[in-house]
Amino acid sequence: MRRTIATVSLSGTLPEKLEAIAAARFDGIELFENDFVNYKGSASQVRAMASDLGLSIDLYQPFRDFEGMPDAQFRRSLERAERKFDLMQELDVSMVLCCSNTSPLTIDDPDLAAAQLHELAGRAAARNLRVGFEALAWGRATNLYGQAWEIVRRADHPHLGLILDSFHTLSLKDDPAGIAGIPGHKIFFLQMADAPLLSMDVLQWARHYRSFPGQGQFDMANFLEQVLLAGYTGPLSLEIFNDVFRETPNRRIAVDAMRSLLYLESQVRDRLEHPAPPDGKPDHAKYAEQRARVLQRIELYSPPPLPEIAGLSYIEFAADEASAAQFDTLLQQLGFRRAGRHRSKAVVLYRQGDINLIVNAQPNSFARSRFETHGLSVCALAVRTADPEGAVGRATAMQSKRYDGPIGPYEQRVPAVVSPGGSLVSFVSSALGPNGLYEADFVLDDESDAAGQGVGLQQIDHVALGLAVDQQDTWILFSRAVLGLEPGESLELADPFGLVRSRGVANADRSMRLVLNVSPGPGTRTARTVAAGGGVTVHHIALNCHDIFDTVARMRARGARFVPISGNYYDDLITRIDLDEHLVARMRDAGILFDRSQAGDYFHIYTESFNDGLFFEVVQRVNAYDGYGATNAPARMASQAQRGA
Amino acid sequence: MRRTIATVSLSGTLPEKLEAIAAARFDGIELFENDFVNYKGSASQVRAMASDLGLSIDLYQPFRDFEGMPDAQFRRSLERAERKFDLMQELDVSMVLCCSNTSPLTIDDPDLAAAQLHELAGRAAARNLRVGFEALAWGRATNLYGQAWEIVRRADHPHLGLILDSFHTLSLKDDPAGIAGIPGHKIFFLQMADAPLLSMDVLQWARHYRSFPGQGQFDMANFLEQVLLAGYTGPLSLEIFNDVFRETPNRRIAVDAMRSLLYLESQVRDRLEHPAPPDGKPDHAKYAEQRARVLQRIELYSPPPLPEIAGLSYIEFAADEASAAQFDTLLQQLGFRRAGRHRSKAVVLYRQGDINLIVNAQPNSFARSRFETHGLSVCALAVRTADPEGAVGRATAMQSKRYDGPIGPYEQRVPAVVSPGGSLVSFVSSALGPNGLYEADFVLDDESDAAGQGVGLQQIDHVALGLAVDQQDTWILFSRAVLGLEPGESLELADPFGLVRSRGVANADRSMRLVLNVSPGPGTRTARTVAAGGGVTVHHIALNCHDIFDTVARMRARGARFVPISGNYYDDLITRIDLDEHLVARMRDAGILFDRSQAGDYFHIYTESFNDGLFFEVVQRVNAYDGYGATNAPARMASQAQRGA
Repeated sequence: MRRTIATVSLSGTLPEKLEAIAAARFDGIELFENDFVNYKGSASQVRAMASDLGLSIDLYQPFRDFEGMPDAQFRRSLERAERKFDLMQELDVSMVLCCSNTSPLTIDDPDLAAAQLHELAGRAAARNLRVGFEALAWGRATNLYGQAWEIVRRADHPHLGLILDSFHTLSLKDDPAGIAGIPGHKIFFLQMADAPLLSMDVLQWARHYRSFPGQGQFDMANFLEQVLLAGYTGPLSLEIFNDVFRETPNRRIAVDAMRSLLYLESQVRDRLEHPAPPDGKPDHAKYAEQRARVLQRIELYSPPPLPEIAGLSYIEFAADEASAAQFDTLLQQLGFRRAGRHRSKAVVLYRQGDINLIVNAQPNSFARSRFETHGLSVCALAVRTADPEGAVGRATAMQSKRYDGPIGPYEQRVPAVVSPGGSLVSFVSSALGPNGLYEADFVLDDESDAAGQGVGLQQIDHVALGLAVDQQDTWILFSRAVLGLEPGESLELADPFGLVRSRGVANADRSMRLVLNVSPGPGTRTARTVAAGGGVTVHHIALNCHDIFDTVARMRARGARFVPISGNYYDDLITRIDLDEHLVARMRDAGILFDRSQAGDYFHIYTESFNDGLFFEVVQRVNAYDGYGATNAPARMASQAQRGA
Repeated sequence: MRRTIATVSLSGTLPEKLEAIAAARFDGIELFENDFVNYKGSASQVRAMASDLGLSIDLYQPFRDFEGMPDAQFRRSLERAERKFDLMQELDVSMVLCCSNTSPLTIDDPDLAAAQLHELAGRAAARNLRVGFEALAWGRATNLYGQAWEIVRRADHPHLGLILDSFHTLSLKDDPAGIAGIPGHKIFFLQMADAPLLSMDVLQWARHYRSFPGQGQFDMANFLEQVLLAGYTGPLSLEIFNDVFRETPNRRIAVDAMRSLLYLESQVRDRLEHPAPPDGKPDHAKYAEQRARVLQRIELYSPPPLPEIAGLSYIEFAADEASAAQFDTLLQQLGFRRAGRHRSKAVVLYRQGDINLIVNAQPNSFARSRFETHGLSVCALAVRTADPEGAVGRATAMQSKRYDGPIGPYEQRVPAVVSPGGSLVSFVSSALGPNGLYEADFVLDDESDAAGQGVGLQQIDHVALGLAVDQQDTWILFSRAVLGLEPGESLELADPFGLVRSRGVANADRSMRLVLNVSPGPGTRTARTVAAGGGVTVHHIALNCHDIFDTVARMRARGARFVPISGNYYDDLITRIDLDEHLVARMRDAGILFDRSQAGDYFHIYTESFNDGLFFEVVQRVNAYDGYGATNAPARMASQAQRGA
């Protein structure tokens, strides 16, 4: 499909927007009127600028408050349209978006609207231009696509068609199924906008909170499928009003935009190629035929499949010699052993249970350059998967950059991509088994010595990232489109210096979980960590065990220190949750926090942070508890703030 | 009245909150449960800490999901309550807030709710504690104060009363008039929360957007009047969930909180002392009597009255010698003449029409210290008023700090206060006339030379401030409570690098207008100016004239430069507004922008900025146009960004 984007979706001046759009390899743009009106250059200069960048101008938008008007206003609007048609011809753009009338003067009469749009289409036809009519969700008389289509149908002019925008349909909870029945050639243009599900005035929602497909909570794939089943073959476009995108450097947002369309196309391709089994409805056969026609007619993006992830193979830390030595002390307190040294580099492998942590202090390396800008920090998450090259292929097909570092003799190549913010996601073959990777690269200690050395940590439970506000949607889409991790609900955590929004993303079998934390304000601990990390940073790593009381006792015996929890917490806990008093007493003694859901229980504790930054969490999940103890995060944050004060 | 505030309203750790609350001279607090639960100290330590600061703990809150429950849950909740009662006794707090049930288990049966609350009150009475029942706006069965009162009435227990919160009533558009009929002794506690009028889910609205009285759009004074008419004599409290307050240093927010209550009390006192004339209703006499009783019984804050403002007398700029010389060039281009030199300081007076601008480059002065931290910038706005000392008295009564600078021989004292952010608002006596102030302090040039020297500027039309996000509500309240300026509607302006929210505040006769601009994101020109100005800065000054075409032509002839406006703007303007083509051609030639409202027209133009900061606007208002040309701000912002790029 042709892929286009409205200029209003990005920050910057018009030339900056066009450059970012071209760099992200879009085919064309929707020119948002204000972007043109406030640009210093003329229409022919804009036309040349777009053309030089290889971009067509597919749509001029919006043209407002036209149809269903009293005659005097209608006549004036026709004159206004003629001036815009002049401009469109100078710009070499053949279609204008006319959105449904929001004026208090609107007359609710579909026949009048049809007649007036017919006349407009006639004026357009005289210049070989086309008019697309779109139902705004807050249109005064027309706000559903079904109403807009009825008006277009009655107007019955070849230069008048329908424009669809998923936001306007899905925000009103209207059913998109009817779209499949509209003649495809009468759908002139398609805008795909996602959004979080918010309960608020639809106009405010539309103007501030739209997002790219895959970043919100609407069913984008179903909507697009209906439009394709109708026979639509025009551009797939994005018109996203989003306060954060407006503030964010436009090169990254343009990449997100392209990723969102490629991901959406791949989802719809999957649906069309592997439709749900026959549901017994009489028209199932007809739809099967329609699907096949779509696949013949439309080239939908076909990236390699999502990787099947079997947990995190290792986490790599960027360090220098001094910080590596300090960090070594912390890791030993947590029960890790130095399991091996790299054959040729200043890199040490730490192990416990199935957990591998790599501390990389090699000069002139990627890790060292990360250390120099970010301090001791996570520089790579290594994902275990059956097909590492396939996973990298998926990621690059989804607009991530492949990373190829230098490889020494006897070293395994670990394919990797750059994640948003600059750290790496590496892919390790499951076939290598627990030692395969490390045997090649590391001089491993004798494993037989290791038995009983740890303190009972088993696996990496989750990795919590702190993100700048403008990285949140970027990471949701990266997690879904590149890693196949699906988001859970968004929660708010009260830090003493501001709210922190927290959202988990995980794969289906929960072998990989990330938690994405965002602090809108600058004063929270999360915000300070994120600022130090340049916008994206791992702020803690949660490791699980089978007996948290035993594990924590052994860690304390080794000198580990944990964030202290107020006695008031336990007095309150026992009033909130029906718990055995002795168990609460044990938690109080150990400083362990507790959460309970319908599905199970969660015991957890946080270590003190390393150099006021990264820290660890020790967790024990009981039964099918699927959260992250968010209810207890404020206890941690308050304690950290009290100690910091 | 006793004045109290809930700890949740402020940022920080619990000790930091209490210190800020005490410093703002509150009498007591509502202790928000999580603030206690997550605090490392015990109940007796918290009790001692509050007591040492002179603060009582008036309320422990909230106790949730109690009334109207199935018996098993009810019994468990009674046990939960006993544990909280233990705690309250340790804390020396005698009242708990029980908010209406939000649990899906709630049984909608007022008699059951009354019976269960009666039993809770009995338990409380055994310890000499009291229970206040509050209707949450999102309570499952009970969400109106009338319902809550009916339950309290049926429960009929002396240790059970009603708690009122203006947010819960006004967010649901419920009429507070019925409150006056509730027996005052049964209203146990009163929380006053304002909010902007938002069309969104009430729970989200309540959790994130409440504000102090006077910062939002609810009728706070009417609500409080009803409660006082009922005979309530308890504390006046604030329980404000606000995302920005949570992120803002708590000392300033605590001052805002106190200012909001003092302002509210003074408003209600005015209403009670000067009630609306008899409306013919039979109970008017009864209410007159009730009002008189309230004024006898309750001590409502009685500050000096709001100043009557007759425009801005002068604007003072902080400078040094070099920047003053540069700025001189700009001011001369705008038609100002050097009208006088200060008798003893490096201070120059510029005049044109009724406009006075003072450039202060005096070493070791307040202005110089502002220059050193903020560059050339406005350091004082001088307001013309009949009673300067009264105005300062009003300001200090409203928690502003008086500023007393050094005064030289032969100099007038100009009383001043420090406005939020640190610049001054000075008050100049109207009785001094146009020259009175300056004759004392300045060696004035012969005025007879001045005739015809200017370019037609007449008055200061408005002053536009750029504010950090956390200064917006502070400035709204300061403007209202100290200066008597009332806010207009909030508008959004699209800068190429993010939205800017803009809101005018003005007095009734429009002789003084400020525009408060806030950029949530960091990338806009406004945001950069605000950051350079330390959170509050004047970013432009609008000056009006009678013939903008003539004035601008004369300025251009003197070398003034203006932000260029795209020709596309004028092509679009003539399609939007029915205007004479020749007039549009003149505007295009001159680079003048245009806006039209129902009330009148607005012509305006922006100068290029001085050192990439401050700039001027030249405006001409036609008829009763009452806005600020917000619709054209994006044209300016885009032009500035294109030139900056």
